[in-house]
Amino acid sequence: MKLVRYGQAGQEKPGLIDAQGQVRDLSTYVADIDGAALSPETLQQLAAIDPATLPAVPGPVRYGPPVTRIGKIICVGLNYADHAAETNSPIPAEPIIFMKPTSSIIGPNDTVVIPRGSVKTDWEVELGVVIGKKASYVGEDEALDYVAGYTVINDVSEREYQLERGGTWDKGKGCDTFSPIGPWMVTRDEVVDPQNLSMWLDVNGKRYQNGSTRTMIFTVSKLVSYISEFMSLLPGDIISTGTPPGVGLGQKPPVYVQAGDTMRLSIQGLGEQQQATRAWSRELA
Amino acid sequence: MKLVRYGQAGQEKPGLIDAQGQVRDLSTYVADIDGAALSPETLQQLAAIDPATLPAVPGPVRYGPPVTRIGKIICVGLNYADHAAETNSPIPAEPIIFMKPTSSIIGPNDTVVIPRGSVKTDWEVELGVVIGKKASYVGEDEALDYVAGYTVINDVSEREYQLERGGTWDKGKGCDTFSPIGPWMVTRDEVVDPQNLSMWLDVNGKRYQNGSTRTMIFTVSKLVSYISEFMSLLPGDIISTGTPPGVGLGQKPPVYVQAGDTMRLSIQGLGEQQQATRAWSRELA
Repeated sequence: MKLVRYGQAGQEKPGLIDAQGQVRDLSTYVADIDGAALSPETLQQLAAIDPATLPAVPGPVRYGPPVTRIGKIICVGLNYADHAAETNSPIPAEPIIFMKPTSSIIGPNDTVVIPRGSVKTDWEVELGVVIGKKASYVGEDEALDYVAGYTVINDVSEREYQLERGGTWDKGKGCDTFSPIGPWMVTRDEVVDPQNLSMWLDVNGKRYQNGSTRTMIFTVSKLVSYISEFMSLLPGDIISTGTPPGVGLGQKPPVYVQAGDTMRLSIQGLGEQQQATRAWSRELA
Repeated sequence: MKLVRYGQAGQEKPGLIDAQGQVRDLSTYVADIDGAALSPETLQQLAAIDPATLPAVPGPVRYGPPVTRIGKIICVGLNYADHAAETNSPIPAEPIIFMKPTSSIIGPNDTVVIPRGSVKTDWEVELGVVIGKKASYVGEDEALDYVAGYTVINDVSEREYQLERGGTWDKGKGCDTFSPIGPWMVTRDEVVDPQNLSMWLDVNGKRYQNGSTRTMIFTVSKLVSYISEFMSLLPGDIISTGTPPGVGLGQKPPVYVQAGDTMRLSIQGLGEQQQATRAWSRELA
């Protein structure tokens, strides 16, 4: 299943995408796509519905983030060997984790706001792993049982805030609009091998990132297991699993997002995002 | 006002503490103490109620965290000059920020669980600042207008996870039960000067921390203003403003919490917490 939330920001309704690409409304079955709706039992009930019996939603629609009431976003740094190399960082001995606040979440095609005074806003296409059931100290062999599905995340990052302003990375990762998520949450059964998904990101039509989850240092199973040793992962939580090479910081010379640029990104089978960008202004904040 | 949430975990009701120290139920006025209830307007309405007209709640009660649906906890590292010194860290040039996941939150007197295999679980008494209205790029001079009130936080920290496992501090700060909050959220009007509050923390009756918010490097006003440049602070969000000297890591030799130990901590006018500690076990997870 491809689960979505469609409609105006803050008023999204739950839906799914049928085999013909049509959005169909799920409101009569679930109030929203949140942690409770992602339990294995509820997903099984939703999967049993014949999509043709659901109301077709006339397009075009705005997509919200495909999951709401996300409790936390745990991110993994430098999880692609070639990306670590382009940022002159050593291969981590164990996963580097940091967090993005939920206040940074937007829909997959919403506008990304360049923070006031920012000159180093950068992009990162990432595989998002959506948790479906509480995971605490789970083994690597059973870790995928705790995954409800997958989605696309642009881990937008302000490199000056992240690297030159002291302290941890969180400072450059959590600006408002820095976490576009979606368009879909694709349930785990439809993703045959999460470690073999091609992924790309373009800025203004130029391809900067062109990678595959195949080159992850720590697999999705490993990450779920590892993070669950440090904190419980709850239904609706998201792990953003790191980015392949091609970020702006890695260009020679570095390239950053300017107001008016467009980012487009996708992961195989998980749909595509497109964000316009604009400068911060008090009026539009 | 001293706002509280009382009752069993997950089923807390809103209340306040009257001048005689009696818990009184607020359920007829607010459904719960969340971001919406912390708006200046709602706080003004609640302040206008004569507590004697509210139902007295028979004691003793369990206190939950005094605010629910907390969106994020932003923490400030090394914000007391003498604490920076005891950890052999330089005085930060600007605030160091990191995050605690909301899955780590417990009530002020709930049991703290020492993570599986942990040998370096440590304590940190901190002034918690509760946001009452959306703050984005706010000036230092107006920053306190965005504060609903104050509370006590024990920023429980696993020093091995935080400092020896690679990456950012988040790894050692977010374990389940690592964020006892409360007992009260004291509204801003009752805290005359947030930069002149004594604070202490005992382990098994021995005083380890004995400080004052007077020695903060960056004041509450500065922190609200500063953080609001990197992300919006939303109603119900909490800033944990750093700890004075006396943490376990700073002892010679270091001292860490063992299962069975008791932590007691308090900040002037904000009430007292007491946590028993126990070892992690699968059965009690």
